[in-house]
Amino acid sequence: MEKLTLVKVGGKIVEEPETLKQLLYDFSKIEGYKVLVHGGGRSATAIAAKLGIESIMVNGRRVTDEETLKVVTMVYGGLVNKQIVAGLQAIGVNALGLTGADLNYMRSEKRPVKDVNYGFVGDVKEVNADILADLIGKNVVPVLAPLTHDKAGNMLNTNADTIAGEAAKALSKHFEVTLMFCFEKKGVLMSENDDESVIAEITPALFEKYVAEGIISGGMIPKLENSFDAINAGVKQVIITRANLIHTAGGTKVIG
Amino acid sequence: MEKLTLVKVGGKIVEEPETLKQLLYDFSKIEGYKVLVHGGGRSATAIAAKLGIESIMVNGRRVTDEETLKVVTMVYGGLVNKQIVAGLQAIGVNALGLTGADLNYMRSEKRPVKDVNYGFVGDVKEVNADILADLIGKNVVPVLAPLTHDKAGNMLNTNADTIAGEAAKALSKHFEVTLMFCFEKKGVLMSENDDESVIAEITPALFEKYVAEGIISGGMIPKLENSFDAINAGVKQVIITRANLIHTAGGTKVIG
Repeated sequence: MEKLTLVKVGGKIVEEPETLKQLLYDFSKIEGYKVLVHGGGRSATAIAAKLGIESIMVNGRRVTDEETLKVVTMVYGGLVNKQIVAGLQAIGVNALGLTGADLNYMRSEKRPVKDVNYGFVGDVKEVNADILADLIGKNVVPVLAPLTHDKAGNMLNTNADTIAGEAAKALSKHFEVTLMFCFEKKGVLMSENDDESVIAEITPALFEKYVAEGIISGGMIPKLENSFDAINAGVKQVIITRANLIHTAGGTKVIG
Repeated sequence: MEKLTLVKVGGKIVEEPETLKQLLYDFSKIEGYKVLVHGGGRSATAIAAKLGIESIMVNGRRVTDEETLKVVTMVYGGLVNKQIVAGLQAIGVNALGLTGADLNYMRSEKRPVKDVNYGFVGDVKEVNADILADLIGKNVVPVLAPLTHDKAGNMLNTNADTIAGEAAKALSKHFEVTLMFCFEKKGVLMSENDDESVIAEITPALFEKYVAEGIISGGMIPKLENSFDAINAGVKQVIITRANLIHTAGGTKVIG
């Protein structure tokens, strides 16, 4: 199978013109087939505020009422996505911006209300990767916004990490997929205070050991659990790294 | 060649949930391959106003400064486009929302400043219809937002009628194209005050005659000139009609 790299970058990097430009350049240097998944939360919060809409976050997730859904649809699907697509086209990458509604590539269901009513937030139920794989095979580079739809006419707000994981799993039927999560560090660190102490490789056994020893803790635990979940579902490897290292072999490699 | 119908609808219809729903239903009833081109000016003006940005129109065109460009990119490319795409998916139409930057399907250049500085407004220079035609052949229905790009990283605001005309011309290499412009009347009228006096067919000779007699005047003259221009560039026919008649044989047929 041909190789495909799926890169997920958070909002911050894609929301500043200078860091965006560098990211798109680094991304363009990745060899082989590529997909980019982006956030955009800071812009959504800023524009919501200007429109007089308060942003309410619970457990790091945006509570998405009807007005907030309009804002994220505009900001993620329009502003942020199209700036990335236009930026990639400028450097010769044939980008195509997509939400889950486009080509019906990702269908979700509105999250049931339990302790929290997240509103118009979607849990992914179905990924139709065939038409994406076909486009990727023609050197089209999908740029995925953190939005899905319910196939009943509603857009739904969906976490970008989830979009990346679900797309990577579904594309693994067609490609040998490397899933790359960018965050502010060079990788998973042995020592919190030493930015150079990057763990080169994490296996399930090492993960258990490091968690038991307290080396890996906090938000990194679910991130790595999701990584193993992706690997168990067919993704070849997951790399956790810093955005400016995506075109290198750097970062922490998570393998099954 | 296979038949393709390209329908252009203005903002008003796609911006109200009820009229949008009816439009999408009527659009879905058109047989054969389809493309939808939409506006969104009312929403752009409303959201710009909420953001404290004044909308300045000159000769019916929006003066697009940097902040206004962000608004139209959000509103046309995000809000309006995705509501249409999700609505079509809900009734089984495999829609794909596009701006000119996506797949680099429509490249434009920033309009030179003459009497008026329109700002970030694009004049279309190049349409890459091959990849669109390929998708259409797979029953994908492109939904085109009134936005292009300059292939140097900038989105540009572009009139939806222009997008429709240029896309129709370029797709005529692949399909027998009917270009349909929707407006508030059933068609071009013989008598302004009689909504039923629809002219069934207009040829260039009849057009000249009706203009000379004052039957056709005002904004209808450039609309028909553009229609003949499209026909001369390979479009099979242009139909000018009301949105609720797009799936019927109604309206005024413009032929070469």
